Amino acid sequence: MNRMPSGKSMHSSYLCGLDIGGTKMAATVADRNGPLARVTEPTAKSGTNRAPGEQAVALLKKACNDAGVNFDEVESVGVSSCGPFVKHQDLIQMVAPNICGGIGKQGDLPNTWTSVPLEEVLREHFRTVTIENDCVAALAAERAFGNLQDIASCAYVTWSTGIGFGLCVDGRLLRGKNGNAGHAGHMLMTDQSTAQCGCGNLGDVEALVSGRNLEMRYRRSPEELFNAARDGDAEAHTIVVEATRWFGRALFNVTTTLDISKFVIGGSIWQHHGDWLEPLVIHELSSHMPALTAGVTLSSPGLNAFVADIGALYLAMPEDWPIGWRESKPWKHMPPEKPECPGGK
Amino acid sequence: MNRMPSGKSMHSSYLCGLDIGGTKMAATVADRNGPLARVTEPTAKSGTNRAPGEQAVALLKKACNDAGVNFDEVESVGVSSCGPFVKHQDLIQMVAPNICGGIGKQGDLPNTWTSVPLEEVLREHFRTVTIENDCVAALAAERAFGNLQDIASCAYVTWSTGIGFGLCVDGRLLRGKNGNAGHAGHMLMTDQSTAQCGCGNLGDVEALVSGRNLEMRYRRSPEELFNAARDGDAEAHTIVVEATRWFGRALFNVTTTLDISKFVIGGSIWQHHGDWLEPLVIHELSSHMPALTAGVTLSSPGLNAFVADIGALYLAMPEDWPIGWRESKPWKHMPPEKPECPGGK
Repeated sequence: MNRMPSGKSMHSSYLCGLDIGGTKMAATVADRNGPLARVTEPTAKSGTNRAPGEQAVALLKKACNDAGVNFDEVESVGVSSCGPFVKHQDLIQMVAPNICGGIGKQGDLPNTWTSVPLEEVLREHFRTVTIENDCVAALAAERAFGNLQDIASCAYVTWSTGIGFGLCVDGRLLRGKNGNAGHAGHMLMTDQSTAQCGCGNLGDVEALVSGRNLEMRYRRSPEELFNAARDGDAEAHTIVVEATRWFGRALFNVTTTLDISKFVIGGSIWQHHGDWLEPLVIHELSSHMPALTAGVTLSSPGLNAFVADIGALYLAMPEDWPIGWRESKPWKHMPPEKPECPGGK
Repeated sequence: MNRMPSGKSMHSSYLCGLDIGGTKMAATVADRNGPLARVTEPTAKSGTNRAPGEQAVALLKKACNDAGVNFDEVESVGVSSCGPFVKHQDLIQMVAPNICGGIGKQGDLPNTWTSVPLEEVLREHFRTVTIENDCVAALAAERAFGNLQDIASCAYVTWSTGIGFGLCVDGRLLRGKNGNAGHAGHMLMTDQSTAQCGCGNLGDVEALVSGRNLEMRYRRSPEELFNAARDGDAEAHTIVVEATRWFGRALFNVTTTLDISKFVIGGSIWQHHGDWLEPLVIHELSSHMPALTAGVTLSSPGLNAFVADIGALYLAMPEDWPIGWRESKPWKHMPPEKPECPGGK
């Protein structure tokens, strides 16, 4: 991965990281020893479409203030953001249906935005801005510090409110024409389902298995549903087993397309239930084409709940910092919070 | 793409190319001005599992003889082969169900092979052996010489007897842990179909749309079926429109996974019917998530029926040859033959 865009200073003492989700935004400032301060807020969804970018700048200023860092001296920011993205005059704009009211199909957003000019606003304050899809950033972090080190062909998957993928083949993160590689949560899996995704499609992976969609269809929170299934409630168990089968099929489709050897699975559903769901997923994944799936393994993230923050920082990080972080594992000393999930929408 | 493996001579005067399909094998020898001779035979399927490799060597010797080239002086061979592959002691073996009787589900093969030691046999005769999946080789050729030049994120797809993909993201061909990236023809598209693929799966892309599967289900050759549909036969038209819809969905799934901007589509079905199928495919591809599919285009191969041969040669080609080939387009002067399709099985 090219983590050193042209113009990037190699001598910054500090850098900023942003984790932008549909629900929450987190801003972090770090030095070469690790994160110094982190502040969060619900993601802004009213005003002009510059609001999320301006909120991000304000949060980063607050984080810098908390850490005693002069914001104006920080040259680089790494951004882990929900997508998809489009490029406008070569600058990345976010077109996420859970933030932009002019795109979303649910009609519950207090704006009519059709895009958010994220890179434009951030470039007014930073010399270097590196924006990646949240699961791509998480994948980068797991490859640098976590459970995907030295795995050339691998993926990060979040099973949470939404479903997202970050993909790496032959040692290189995949981005695609607009940085949208990894939206495999929108792969169409069946034409016989009435389950509808937030994007409007019927029967895509997210419609069939995401926490948000399971909640809409079964009127129980994902936590209640998965706990009931674990405790033996027959109806909940049937629903969860079916969702798990679709999730395993999605991993199969990605494996047969990309010849992946390992998946790290994050997100609240897997974090709490991966222990008993894993054999079901492995069974579905491995029962279709053994020549392609033999030896494929699953794992939880090595960075736990901070994979998005560390991923964002890593995107902006000078090349000589990761070695020290691999040793000191600063994410282990970050203040605990309610676990959240990159890609959660 | 790394076309210069270690040990590769940069000063070879000649190089060999092999196109190995489930039906036919083609051997070509070329110099820096273009192909000099080409011979073909039905792919060997009896004897020991070394037979296809030994047949390949014999055919290459014959091609060299026809061209007045000393086989023993040729150091490099590029191989475009049907897959999947496995690696055994770091050497590529072919585990294609249409060649290996110990794997195929149809029970019509005169052998019990579970693999073909292709690289091992070829390395007994060549200093450098570069083997790629046939659609990856075709993609490499289209990127070097054809209709995918300067397209960073793109794919080659064959719609023929079988369905195969070659994938390129961010300017790099995708290979995966065993060189099997691109087997997206085995993506599962529905759980409600009784259409069975040669691999045994129900409802994968190949089961739903490949020429072989359409022929098995409707007892008409793909040529008859597609011609009847074009001529307005109502039943044939319904079948073909349905298949085309699945094909478009497969392209959508690949686009949403990899953020591709252009597909080159080869194979006999597209070659003969792409003109009227293209609007149907585009409609299905573009009706699910405009943010990801806007601007995605389709095209036929620039290298026509010789894309596999040129692809194989390109894999072994010194870095200074392609410039001349782009100018002289030697594939335009190769003797015509019945069009065949990389990935055809």
